[in-house]
Amino acid sequence: MTEPAALLTPWRGTVLPAWTDYNGHLRDAHYMIVFSNATDCLIEGFGLDEAGRKATGHSIFTLESHINYLLEVKEGTPIEVRTQVLGADTKRLNIYHTLHVAGAQDTLAANQQMLLNVDMSGPRAAPFAPSVLPRVQALAERHRGLPTPKYAGRSISLPAPR
Amino acid sequence: MTEPAALLTPWRGTVLPAWTDYNGHLRDAHYMIVFSNATDCLIEGFGLDEAGRKATGHSIFTLESHINYLLEVKEGTPIEVRTQVLGADTKRLNIYHTLHVAGAQDTLAANQQMLLNVDMSGPRAAPFAPSVLPRVQALAERHRGLPTPKYAGRSISLPAPR
Repeated sequence: MTEPAALLTPWRGTVLPAWTDYNGHLRDAHYMIVFSNATDCLIEGFGLDEAGRKATGHSIFTLESHINYLLEVKEGTPIEVRTQVLGADTKRLNIYHTLHVAGAQDTLAANQQMLLNVDMSGPRAAPFAPSVLPRVQALAERHRGLPTPKYAGRSISLPAPR
Repeated sequence: MTEPAALLTPWRGTVLPAWTDYNGHLRDAHYMIVFSNATDCLIEGFGLDEAGRKATGHSIFTLESHINYLLEVKEGTPIEVRTQVLGADTKRLNIYHTLHVAGAQDTLAANQQMLLNVDMSGPRAAPFAPSVLPRVQALAERHRGLPTPKYAGRSISLPAPR
């Protein structure tokens, strides 16, 4: 497993009561809220916060997302998302989040996302703005050579019963 | 595209204000809430509503989920989820949801899920209860031979820039 120090930790928080099921565990759909929040924070770090979106006329769309649920997590637990950039081109970003109890090693869930930069005047796919692209490329470069994480590139299938 | 009549429509509703972003569109993470609701309704149809979960001691866990975002949808839009069973064995269920404006053809998003039946006394994976298994098998049989849907079995990757 890649050392946490090599990754970003764009989001830290707590499992909120509104996110849990009747057993007090984080609901499946609400893992995606946590990962979506982490993506928002990552993108803000590239300069696409509200002011940056207004200045560039660009926004980031999620094209595709894959999640693996590994362990349950209870209401009130302090949690964090760690993020690895798997790849980027001039308008797309392929990222991999893992969810952890704050500071802990075990992976509670893994989530790969493909993001697309969009010029909202179309809307249409467009290269990252000149103010954004170098930051995306710098992070992609920093993460180049990290091991491919366990749940990247997964597809869902059901083998025939044994 | 498979005719809607061949599929289940386990969930109908409306895009709620709480699910939208600053542009009034359904947020990426909240598509998953819609699909999760549809899965809950599907499972209740197999007899695993609250009373059924209590009677069997079983519950359904989501192992893995893959979503493709295709079109935006605005607050207040009437929407529905259509569902195809791609496969099942004695304890797992591989399903494929699509999201639509109510009664319309265009697919707004597609979501494949792998579900696992869990005996909560462990908790551990366990065969579907005798009251549940025939219903799962009957639906899987009814959907056998339907075309494999477009976004089933996808994996996320970023080809090298051209």
